[in-house]
Amino acid sequence: MARFLKSRKNLVGQAPGAMTFIGRKKMEKPRFRIMSYDEKNFREKETVDAASMLTHLQKNAVNWINIDGLHDHKEIMEVGMAFNLSPLVLEDIVNTDQRPKVIEDDDNLVVFLKQLTYEASDHSVHADQITLILGENYVISFQEEVGAFFNTIRERMRQNVGKIRTSNSDYLFYRIIDTIADNYMLCIGAIGELVEENETNILKNVNKEIIGKIYNHKQEISFIRKAVRPAKDVTKSLKNAESKLIHESTRPYINDLDDILIHSMETIEIYYTMIGDQLNLYNTNLSNRANDVMKVLTIFAAIFIPLTFIAGIYGTNFDNVPELHYKYSYFIMWGVMVTLAIVMLLYFRRKKWL
Amino acid sequence: MARFLKSRKNLVGQAPGAMTFIGRKKMEKPRFRIMSYDEKNFREKETVDAASMLTHLQKNAVNWINIDGLHDHKEIMEVGMAFNLSPLVLEDIVNTDQRPKVIEDDDNLVVFLKQLTYEASDHSVHADQITLILGENYVISFQEEVGAFFNTIRERMRQNVGKIRTSNSDYLFYRIIDTIADNYMLCIGAIGELVEENETNILKNVNKEIIGKIYNHKQEISFIRKAVRPAKDVTKSLKNAESKLIHESTRPYINDLDDILIHSMETIEIYYTMIGDQLNLYNTNLSNRANDVMKVLTIFAAIFIPLTFIAGIYGTNFDNVPELHYKYSYFIMWGVMVTLAIVMLLYFRRKKWL
Amino acid sequence: MARFLKSRKNLVGQAPGAMTFIGRKKMEKPRFRIMSYDEKNFREKETVDAASMLTHLQKNAVNWINIDGLHDHKEIMEVGMAFNLSPLVLEDIVNTDQRPKVIEDDDNLVVFLKQLTYEASDHSVHADQITLILGENYVISFQEEVGAFFNTIRERMRQNVGKIRTSNSDYLFYRIIDTIADNYMLCIGAIGELVEENETNILKNVNKEIIGKIYNHKQEISFIRKAVRPAKDVTKSLKNAESKLIHESTRPYINDLDDILIHSMETIEIYYTMIGDQLNLYNTNLSNRANDVMKVLTIFAAIFIPLTFIAGIYGTNFDNVPELHYKYSYFIMWGVMVTLAIVMLLYFRRKKWL
Amino acid sequence: MARFLKSRKNLVGQAPGAMTFIGRKKMEKPRFRIMSYDEKNFREKETVDAASMLTHLQKNAVNWINIDGLHDHKEIMEVGMAFNLSPLVLEDIVNTDQRPKVIEDDDNLVVFLKQLTYEASDHSVHADQITLILGENYVISFQEEVGAFFNTIRERMRQNVGKIRTSNSDYLFYRIIDTIADNYMLCIGAIGELVEENETNILKNVNKEIIGKIYNHKQEISFIRKAVRPAKDVTKSLKNAESKLIHESTRPYINDLDDILIHSMETIEIYYTMIGDQLNLYNTNLSNRANDVMKVLTIFAAIFIPLTFIAGIYGTNFDNVPELHYKYSYFIMWGVMVTLAIVMLLYFRRKKWL
Amino acid sequence: MARFLKSRKNLVGQAPGAMTFIGRKKMEKPRFRIMSYDEKNFREKETVDAASMLTHLQKNAVNWINIDGLHDHKEIMEVGMAFNLSPLVLEDIVNTDQRPKVIEDDDNLVVFLKQLTYEASDHSVHADQITLILGENYVISFQEEVGAFFNTIRERMRQNVGKIRTSNSDYLFYRIIDTIADNYMLCIGAIGELVEENETNILKNVNKEIIGKIYNHKQEISFIRKAVRPAKDVTKSLKNAESKLIHESTRPYINDLDDILIHSMETIEIYYTMIGDQLNLYNTNLSNRANDVMKVLTIFAAIFIPLTFIAGIYGTNFDNVPELHYKYSYFIMWGVMVTLAIVMLLYFRRKKWL
Repeated sequence: MARFLKSRKNLVGQAPGAMTFIGRKKMEKPRFRIMSYDEKNFREKETVDAASMLTHLQKNAVNWINIDGLHDHKEIMEVGMAFNLSPLVLEDIVNTDQRPKVIEDDDNLVVFLKQLTYEASDHSVHADQITLILGENYVISFQEEVGAFFNTIRERMRQNVGKIRTSNSDYLFYRIIDTIADNYMLCIGAIGELVEENETNILKNVNKEIIGKIYNHKQEISFIRKAVRPAKDVTKSLKNAESKLIHESTRPYINDLDDILIHSMETIEIYYTMIGDQLNLYNTNLSNRANDVMKVLTIFAAIFIPLTFIAGIYGTNFDNVPELHYKYSYFIMWGVMVTLAIVMLLYFRRKKWL
Repeated sequence: MARFLKSRKNLVGQAPGAMTFIGRKKMEKPRFRIMSYDEKNFREKETVDAASMLTHLQKNAVNWINIDGLHDHKEIMEVGMAFNLSPLVLEDIVNTDQRPKVIEDDDNLVVFLKQLTYEASDHSVHADQITLILGENYVISFQEEVGAFFNTIRERMRQNVGKIRTSNSDYLFYRIIDTIADNYMLCIGAIGELVEENETNILKNVNKEIIGKIYNHKQEISFIRKAVRPAKDVTKSLKNAESKLIHESTRPYINDLDDILIHSMETIEIYYTMIGDQLNLYNTNLSNRANDVMKVLTIFAAIFIPLTFIAGIYGTNFDNVPELHYKYSYFIMWGVMVTLAIVMLLYFRRKKWL
Repeated sequence: MARFLKSRKNLVGQAPGAMTFIGRKKMEKPRFRIMSYDEKNFREKETVDAASMLTHLQKNAVNWINIDGLHDHKEIMEVGMAFNLSPLVLEDIVNTDQRPKVIEDDDNLVVFLKQLTYEASDHSVHADQITLILGENYVISFQEEVGAFFNTIRERMRQNVGKIRTSNSDYLFYRIIDTIADNYMLCIGAIGELVEENETNILKNVNKEIIGKIYNHKQEISFIRKAVRPAKDVTKSLKNAESKLIHESTRPYINDLDDILIHSMETIEIYYTMIGDQLNLYNTNLSNRANDVMKVLTIFAAIFIPLTFIAGIYGTNFDNVPELHYKYSYFIMWGVMVTLAIVMLLYFRRKKWL
Repeated sequence: MARFLKSRKNLVGQAPGAMTFIGRKKMEKPRFRIMSYDEKNFREKETVDAASMLTHLQKNAVNWINIDGLHDHKEIMEVGMAFNLSPLVLEDIVNTDQRPKVIEDDDNLVVFLKQLTYEASDHSVHADQITLILGENYVISFQEEVGAFFNTIRERMRQNVGKIRTSNSDYLFYRIIDTIADNYMLCIGAIGELVEENETNILKNVNKEIIGKIYNHKQEISFIRKAVRPAKDVTKSLKNAESKLIHESTRPYINDLDDILIHSMETIEIYYTMIGDQLNLYNTNLSNRANDVMKVLTIFAAIFIPLTFIAGIYGTNFDNVPELHYKYSYFIMWGVMVTLAIVMLLYFRRKKWL
Repeated sequence: MARFLKSRKNLVGQAPGAMTFIGRKKMEKPRFRIMSYDEKNFREKETVDAASMLTHLQKNAVNWINIDGLHDHKEIMEVGMAFNLSPLVLEDIVNTDQRPKVIEDDDNLVVFLKQLTYEASDHSVHADQITLILGENYVISFQEEVGAFFNTIRERMRQNVGKIRTSNSDYLFYRIIDTIADNYMLCIGAIGELVEENETNILKNVNKEIIGKIYNHKQEISFIRKAVRPAKDVTKSLKNAESKLIHESTRPYINDLDDILIHSMETIEIYYTMIGDQLNLYNTNLSNRANDVMKVLTIFAAIFIPLTFIAGIYGTNFDNVPELHYKYSYFIMWGVMVTLAIVMLLYFRRKKWL
């Protein structure tokens, strides 16, 4: 299956608002989790359907609704209606091949992002779509898959550490995006370390596995870039957004997000260039090796072919070859041959082939 | 015939408004189809001339006029006059080598696009020009060729599924462009899959068909890009258009179109880069193979040329070659030769040529 | 002489307004042609000096003054004074190495362009400067050389076909630029066809003429681009110009011009990329051929060098070589040799070198 | 450890404002230095904790507070509170992998930069983060490491040379950045000199150390660029900043800074291109060498293989080889061989292989 | 010494306004020349110090002060004070590694440019800094070196030819810049001609001098670009400058300057691309040659190695080799050999290796 573009065959000609799940794999059941908090109170519930989850919504608190698993369209639609989401947004939540983007409407600020996970076992990066919806007193997050991704945030909320419990929904919203962005950095760093490690091997080694590795790194970096580049546009939009949902006190944090993503993109570009350099270096080494092989061949050929020729001369069966009958001819021939060989070796040494 | 630029020889110096058909192939007869609908009523007619088609136009309904086949200029002109189209627009409809673009005038919003079709048999992509004209209560679509392209939309209209029958002409207009854009994604995905499939073959294989394939993919991607890039400009224009013909309720859909086309372009770029990498990889493999060939040659030469030389020495006919007469000389020679060969093999193994 | 930059040695330090002709070749005499027309009347005169030409100017009609040949500065200056052209403009008309540009002053809109002609005989493109001056009731065109370039327009004017005779001077102005732009398309198409033709040859062929051809095409495309790129800036300026000399009714035509030039530039870029691909393909083929040559060499060497060695062994003159005296030794040797050769051939076949 | 991206593993999910030091190495103790001055007075103190340092702060003078060593968060936070710095800024001061940037708030103008030091011993460049905070009557500088970096400025202040003592805090602020920028130029110049030196070696030499050197230079230039490019954005921001902290009299100096950084970037790009050229040149030389090796091989093979063949012919033991019995056959053979060899040599000379 | 960045070692940490001369070479004494003119009068004086030069300044005339030689800081400073130049500007005049730029203050418009001189003897281009200061009734020009650069202008002034004597100081200012720009064109043209000349040699020739030449041209073009690119920014700034020192009548001339510099940059880019193509072409030719060498080797080896093998067979000393005793064996062997050689030659001819 194409990795860079999820198959859309069954989408052509469909009405927008028709929700088709095209994600990586389906969980058996979606899972709903709601956390309602203010400075003093904190409630946490986990349910298996939208309806019962919605009953736990607190009017005077900030609510974080997290939905894991997107294939049950009925449930998603129920959430959508409760929070006044447009059909287009619902479609995009479910169709998980969206380009990261921001959609702003009257009640909500919707952000589509990719969350990246680095698989250490095979040095690969995977992407899952995450949709964040910021409302007056709620944040909704839709994830393709259950993950331990935001556990640090949740733990800090439960233990009331940091600013989240004393802030509005927009700060939580920021914290979630910040976690995603930090993770981009982690992934870039992980691939980057592999790239930098390769650096030293490449000058010594020209076996074919290295070339495969280099192209692998290139593809992973390219895959990360596909997620990060539009994410940079997202943070830029957020930075410039005039939505009343983002309070003045949260603005500096959003600006900081933007800096992190610019930094990410620049680092990606640097690794991209490094990989390009490694490929060139590999090819140069290959040529160097080819030259070495050829030199060995040429030295052997240039020394022994003339000597064999001389031996061949005195292997002829002419009746009259005067040299054959002189007593020391054979030794003289050896002398000539050794001299010739030494001369050739000196010549090649002067040419720096030896 | 040049594929990337249709021949224009007979156009130079011609007055604008002079209509010259330069399309791919001509149908025998153009076909006119008109569908008039509102929420309750739906009428559909097919005629062979413009005049009779125009009699079916409904004032109080939305009319979708579809014209297949563009070589009969008289008919096209008749349609043009009925809907107040400028001569320049009519010329561009017929001259099917237009760059995708938007033209806005008082009564109409005219959009020129390419519709792409992927030919699975030879993995190629073809482009036909489609012109869409949005008016107050009508959409006109001009196609070079009859195709099943919009059948899904038509079927949904007939069965009154979805929002079309309850919306204005601008929503139909959007749906047609959306179908075209979805098709871009399909074509990109089809070529993209071929590109990604190639990936694994390339590391193992250096036969010459692969290089042909890679360049084929490159050209198809390039061909798709030629259609998609200006289409992105079109959707951007529509997004920013202030035409009163596009109602506020349709705006979010238009914005979504723009996102799809940006996504398309980014995916195209990624495949472009991948193809470039494949070419480099192919060349690197070629060099690797050349090195392998050379190593084989060098190993054979370096081992056997010296041995042959030794044999040559004792094939000389000198009267006085003391070694020849010693009883075990021949076996000693064999011993020396085998030793030499083994030394060479060890040397080459240490050099990792074996 | 440098083709991409006409020699300017004698211009340094000269005052502006000093007119120096640096064009391709000089006609013996400049030629002046004036056509005055309105809907009903049409007069055409040809003279050899500016003064007599100016007497034919019609106040109440549109006048098209065409001057072929730019080396007679006195005549050019006379025209300049009659139409109030600034010395800088006059200098630029004569110094035919101007970058295409627009100059707007109170009375005139001056456009400098290159007109391209494709020489089918040697597949090359030539550029001549053309200067167009739009005034209230006149268009003046300065050409380096007499050409049949605008004959189609003239013929249509004489026979009163099309809109020219019924329109203002700005429409004629547009038609002249349109003809030039159409010609760009023709030149691009002509070179483009050569480029596309090459495509198929390149996979089969690596003779050295092809590489020369490819670089030729590249240079011609590059030469065309040098003319078209700034022309695009010119049409963009015209599109955005607020000059009262361009009437509202002519605006859509000017916009269309801009589209044609954008289309031209995009096509140029596509062919540029194709040429780059062809060069890479050529180089890849070259490597493929080198590999083939090396394989042939290696196969011959690897098979016959060991066999020759064996023969050499039994050509030695040792007194005691037991094998020599066995009756079937010679045939056994043959058997060993044939076996060895077959083994090698199978080995090379498995390696896909055969 | 990844050089281009400091490890951030322990940062993910952390709250902003949580200060984690990720710098190069830790000093045992941070060092605080405060210099208070106006035109007449100058006081200088060095302390080991923030509290005692703050007691030396002069209200009516300009204060330059320099902090070397950033791992003691408690102390940093104390400084932060004294000058009303936001937690985000404090975090960024300590987390020394910030992209250079400007943060403006009500009381302070905060600038994050990299200071580069060129290590002559191994031709490498190191970067340390420096944070500058401009307030009404103070400048605070945070450095990762103690360095002699700003000693020239300090010496001039002590001796009351130049404009610093008679100017406001913004001039000191400018002077510090100017010193950093001058140092960029120094680093670029140092690497640049190595690059230009290489130029001449490269045409003569193809040993493998040179290729390593070239890639080293590339990486150092790339490393410098990583610091300078965002610094250019910083100076541009300062140029356009409307902060009341920068007085009109200091503006021209800030503009000058911007010019220096544009100049730096352009020089970096030139060296980048030069390095690219050197790599290509190296590869071209490699091919040239390969050709030379092959020519030697071919000449030896082409001359001696046919001669050996001839000798082989007369080494055959056929009963009836008439030539063998002619008295001068052997000498004739020599004659033929020498002639053949000369013909071959002439042929190769004509081909310019000799 | 680094050519692309003059050494700045002794500048780091220095106060701005400290003037350090880092130019190419020092003249023994600076030279001051003052020309005062209006339509009727013209006075010209040459002095060796600033003070006496300043006494010749005419209030009611335009004064052109030219200073050759910049190492005597005291004199420069005296001029600076007389015309109210800021210390920063004075520093930049003397420190001759400035990036071309414009500085505008209340009384003066200061322009820093490079003047290029083409050294025909070694095909190299040199750059010297020139600083131009435009005031109400004066133009001051600072040059690193005495040169005949502006002699054409001076001669025209003395003989009262052209517009200078009748115009304000801004026209003189324009004329000086125009002369510099014309000289850019000359330098580009000179190198360009060398580049175009190379074109034809490159297809025929692969000797190593050509590769050196190509890189030389590249570096000269790169050097020119370093001066011209920022000069384009300068003319653009002048075009948009709102300084009251530039009168309306001089504006069109300034616009023309801008066009010349855009044209220069475009031509530079074209030559840059051409050089890149030449390098690729050279490398392709190199590969072609390598293939040719290999073909020669392979043909010799493939023909003679099998033949030598055959001869070797009949050189063996087996007791029983039946063929040896047949009377015509030797001649049959010759026949087989010749046939084999012909077959091989035909095979290679069919492969187009011959």
